[in-house]
Amino acid sequence: MHLKEAGIGEGISEVIVTTQSVSGVPNAAPIGIITITNEENKYFVKLYKGSKTLSNVQETNKLAANVTDDAVLFVKAAFEPLAKTQFSLFYGFPVLKEANSWILFDCTFSKKTRESFVFRLAPLAVKTNRKEVKAINRGLNAVIEAAIIATRYAITEDKRDRAEREKLMALYARIVEKCGGSREKEAMKILQEKT
Amino acid sequence: MHLKEAGIGEGISEVIVTTQSVSGVPNAAPIGIITITNEENKYFVKLYKGSKTLSNVQETNKLAANVTDDAVLFVKAAFEPLAKTQFSLFYGFPVLKEANSWILFDCTFSKKTRESFVFRLAPLAVKTNRKEVKAINRGLNAVIEAAIIATRYAITEDKRDRAEREKLMALYARIVEKCGGSREKEAMKILQEKT
Repeated sequence: MHLKEAGIGEGISEVIVTTQSVSGVPNAAPIGIITITNEENKYFVKLYKGSKTLSNVQETNKLAANVTDDAVLFVKAAFEPLAKTQFSLFYGFPVLKEANSWILFDCTFSKKTRESFVFRLAPLAVKTNRKEVKAINRGLNAVIEAAIIATRYAITEDKRDRAEREKLMALYARIVEKCGGSREKEAMKILQEKT
Repeated sequence: MHLKEAGIGEGISEVIVTTQSVSGVPNAAPIGIITITNEENKYFVKLYKGSKTLSNVQETNKLAANVTDDAVLFVKAAFEPLAKTQFSLFYGFPVLKEANSWILFDCTFSKKTRESFVFRLAPLAVKTNRKEVKAINRGLNAVIEAAIIATRYAITEDKRDRAEREKLMALYARIVEKCGGSREKEAMKILQEKT
């Protein structure tokens, strides 16, 4: 099954990963899907220890990749539980209603590192909801970079490079202010309230 | 005419602008289309003095926005003349064959700043060639940011913040290496050869 048509390309695709616990509680978090392109495409994901996504995958061996370019959805998924009304079901598995495409994956443990578990992903089902054409917006890019920095603030006690990160955050905030649309500006506002 | 369907959204849309001289020589350069969203959308472009795009627009009062997410196309358009075979004609005006959409604009002089001319843009014709779904790739974002920094190296004599810019270039190179696909890696390689 080739996933390029559903938006998962070479390198790392930034998506919102949805999972559920054994008892059926859904979760959403922004995560990268790693595509290794050889004679056939191979998909992997690296899940950090202590994350809800990891414990859910360990319980159910499944995750769904939700492809979206909505800056607000990325930031909300990074910092707060999404509302139940934002989920829909795809083959009985929670996905995000607003996503442009869904890919349901089976997860097989591949390796363990000091801080994470890596899983090999095998696509079980794919659905494209919406195709579009959209010019690159530097504001969207800046929100994603800022969210990654902000997430790292949250999960590490490391104080090194703090000034460096704050300088980058200020740079990304300026880019959003200059280049972003209303969704990017709203996302940046949420992000700044969280950090 | 609403351009969102053709990929020109709120804020600044990074596109490749094609123009031609009175004698019909085509040119391509990465430029932002500014959308001001009020009761109706208004489109503007800021063209730097000394640029081929500006002199062509002054000669013909027209430009075309080519929406694409091809990192290599962005970098090549920034640093070298594109091959004639990469152009096609849209209502007799040069556009990029590979673009996902084309918007042909009429340009009206709006204001002059120290370093640029601003034009108000009125869409004359729109064509969407290809819609797709594509996950965010941080490598693509990083190529765009790196290309902007590299372009500024070229047009300014200013030595201030040079170390800062080199640090950012190194950061973006690392992101491309980690997250990019083959197009992003090729684009970054071209960019590094040019700077």
